[in-house]
Amino acid sequence: MSITALQAPVTRNDAAISLAVDILAQRFGERCVRSQAIRMQHGHTTTWLPTQAPDAVVFALTTEEVAETVQVCAQHGVPVIPFGTGSSLEGHVNAPGGGISVDLSRMQAVLEVNAADMDCRVEAGVTRKQLNSYLRDTGLFFPIDPGADASLGGMAATRASGTNAVRYGTMKNAVLGLTVVTASGDIIHTGGRARKSSAGYDLTRLMIGSEGTLGIITELRLRLHGQPEAVSGGVCPFPTLEAACQAVILTIQCGLPVARIELLDPLQVRASNTYSKLELKETPTLFLEFHGTENGVKEQAELFAEIAQDQGGGPFVWATQAEERTKLWSARHDAYWSAFTLRPGAKGIATDVCVPISRLADCVGETQKDIEDAGLIAPIVGHVGDGNFHVLVLVDPDTPDEIKRAESFIERLNWRAIDMGGTCTGEHGVGQGKMKYMRKEHGGGVDMMRAIKQALDPLGIFNPGKIVPSQ
Amino acid sequence: MSITALQAPVTRNDAAISLAVDILAQRFGERCVRSQAIRMQHGHTTTWLPTQAPDAVVFALTTEEVAETVQVCAQHGVPVIPFGTGSSLEGHVNAPGGGISVDLSRMQAVLEVNAADMDCRVEAGVTRKQLNSYLRDTGLFFPIDPGADASLGGMAATRASGTNAVRYGTMKNAVLGLTVVTASGDIIHTGGRARKSSAGYDLTRLMIGSEGTLGIITELRLRLHGQPEAVSGGVCPFPTLEAACQAVILTIQCGLPVARIELLDPLQVRASNTYSKLELKETPTLFLEFHGTENGVKEQAELFAEIAQDQGGGPFVWATQAEERTKLWSARHDAYWSAFTLRPGAKGIATDVCVPISRLADCVGETQKDIEDAGLIAPIVGHVGDGNFHVLVLVDPDTPDEIKRAESFIERLNWRAIDMGGTCTGEHGVGQGKMKYMRKEHGGGVDMMRAIKQALDPLGIFNPGKIVPSQ
Repeated sequence: MSITALQAPVTRNDAAISLAVDILAQRFGERCVRSQAIRMQHGHTTTWLPTQAPDAVVFALTTEEVAETVQVCAQHGVPVIPFGTGSSLEGHVNAPGGGISVDLSRMQAVLEVNAADMDCRVEAGVTRKQLNSYLRDTGLFFPIDPGADASLGGMAATRASGTNAVRYGTMKNAVLGLTVVTASGDIIHTGGRARKSSAGYDLTRLMIGSEGTLGIITELRLRLHGQPEAVSGGVCPFPTLEAACQAVILTIQCGLPVARIELLDPLQVRASNTYSKLELKETPTLFLEFHGTENGVKEQAELFAEIAQDQGGGPFVWATQAEERTKLWSARHDAYWSAFTLRPGAKGIATDVCVPISRLADCVGETQKDIEDAGLIAPIVGHVGDGNFHVLVLVDPDTPDEIKRAESFIERLNWRAIDMGGTCTGEHGVGQGKMKYMRKEHGGGVDMMRAIKQALDPLGIFNPGKIVPSQ
Repeated sequence: MSITALQAPVTRNDAAISLAVDILAQRFGERCVRSQAIRMQHGHTTTWLPTQAPDAVVFALTTEEVAETVQVCAQHGVPVIPFGTGSSLEGHVNAPGGGISVDLSRMQAVLEVNAADMDCRVEAGVTRKQLNSYLRDTGLFFPIDPGADASLGGMAATRASGTNAVRYGTMKNAVLGLTVVTASGDIIHTGGRARKSSAGYDLTRLMIGSEGTLGIITELRLRLHGQPEAVSGGVCPFPTLEAACQAVILTIQCGLPVARIELLDPLQVRASNTYSKLELKETPTLFLEFHGTENGVKEQAELFAEIAQDQGGGPFVWATQAEERTKLWSARHDAYWSAFTLRPGAKGIATDVCVPISRLADCVGETQKDIEDAGLIAPIVGHVGDGNFHVLVLVDPDTPDEIKRAESFIERLNWRAIDMGGTCTGEHGVGQGKMKYMRKEHGGGVDMMRAIKQALDPLGIFNPGKIVPSQ
């Protein structure tokens, strides 16, 4: 697999890198690591892009250490690539021009929790599960759930979301403010503790989704939510994809505050049945979760059951018991792993797109047909309340022709989503893998992005070869 | 009143302006207006900053005409100031270096409404009330309500919000995408129709709140909401400010999805009683509104009544009848006008700040004391679910000493809010009036803002002398 077509050429300056690594090794001692294993792990990508390892990894403990590292790299014009847990999917942590990976995973302090303001301040290396464990007894929780137990810094950097974005929004909504190390090695604070502000440019939202190309996020102030008094969940089969999507549209339209509403296509249902020992009918199926008061979740579930029935769906089986719900949602969370039961030994190429919800049935339907025509095996799951869906193409890594067919399929999927008024990525981010779709999706907006990149990182040291194509 | 201290010096180039005005007059004929009355109206500010009129006003009808106007101005280095309805409060539309006001108020088309996707596309001159009239029979509505019937382009440019931001968010959340004319006169489209995207820098959020200094918004794609099945509202007196604020905190904490929760201080209650013929007790008072199902709003109101009682507040009187609710909320909306009954003939200086909700009682309490100590008359109303509140200082325009005291008071209010972890403006924006607080609030973030400004508007023609201080 070649990714040369996917990324801007990034030149490598061996002498400068070697000098910077020496300085950092002297400064950070054992926390500046040059071993092959650690370097490879830090350029590791979870899907199909080849690894491009950095020259050294600095395990930073403080914002000031990140700033120091950036200062050294700025002085020598050496690339700096921030690293959280390495769960990104589009080659975000690759080092095409070499350089220094700044690993923030040891910055794990929860610095403040303010119950009255329902916010908290954390270091960038805290993962979402760690934060929720910490919050368990406070009555509060952090809702954004991208599946992987990603670091919160990484989740902000990629504008992550997940299953309950339909109710709680994405990282764009969850972050009140950031501490950021700039490309000159300065430390700035964006946003603040107020719930809203009209005071100047929204640097917080500019950093969110910038994937380490404009700044390195070292601390986050996050908006929390009250743990719901009651939760209920359920599963509902539909005769057709169109009926399932129409039910989703009506659910959103009538203002039903559904917390999660997820589509599994028949192939994914089969995989989940096998892996998670369920006995669901192999048909387009919605998984739902409702949050609210006891009465509220009952009312929501009843209202949804009516909507589903009107579309020929059902029966809608729902449960307020935590145990049943957990089994169901574990199955949804394990969808990625379950898919491999469809083709043991295969490698998965994960991709996501997002379209206006009115086009979702069209886009998923055309995609299913394309999968069939291309002779691929690729289950689909979707955060359908947002119009976002994932395709996991299961390929034999030793069959180049199949990989080529998978790549072509993924290209067509992205063009299709953009043609339908959608986006080439709802939540995975651009990294290296999606750069080639940026011009088509954003037109002249790409030039504005490049101008911003050049203004904030004039030396081009921050995560080069990502997001903004050179043309 | 002098504003020299508040703004960056903006130099004026008479020859270039004269040339640009001639070219635009030739191009736009009667839609390029140079009359004194129209010019003064377009530099008009609704509060206390002196008017700085532009040299001509171009009434644009299309995005392309805005782009043409900008191209002419870019060629001659002449300032361009976008104008919607002129309801901004901090001198946003002033022309300190002269130049061209681009009036978008005639761009009034609702271009699309997509019921399934719950979005719409409008030209920038459509006002929020016009949009809601248009939507009346669709079952959808646009929630953001800053009081004034502002243009949607202007509301995006200033990151407006208002009474129901606590439930529906601010313009930051309401906008899916924008059409923007850049400083080189190019037209770009930001965002898209998908509900979420991780594809690149968030140019939409960068434009929102940039007050015409980075681009001119000519079209907006907006997120709509379903009209609630049921609405109920009510009013609840509290013995103290602290008790009222504590009730707000508990309401938000328990996840009660209140649509509006507004504080009136005793002075404002007195003014509203007089102006709107109410008979409320002159004590800290919350106005509330709930949206949901019939059962849902009943449950919300009952839950709030309990919370209020626990804090020593109440009785909480609530009404689902539209007539009673309308009377109450008309009184809230007329708070601005009602204030003048406290001092007929006075001029109002409106300002807003926003603090973490845990500091709201402190901040309002200290502010009330400061008002008293300064010998001023200044009622307070607040969007307290967000920690945002407004002070309207009623001054005698012919008493310079009083104006000076009011200015000093407003300065102290802004420093106080920032010291409490808040912001110098929750929703009015920076304009000229709040520039002096930017460095204190954002520190090195101001330098990043300046770098962005220079990158996207290298000639400095877009609304010069606003937002970003020169130091």
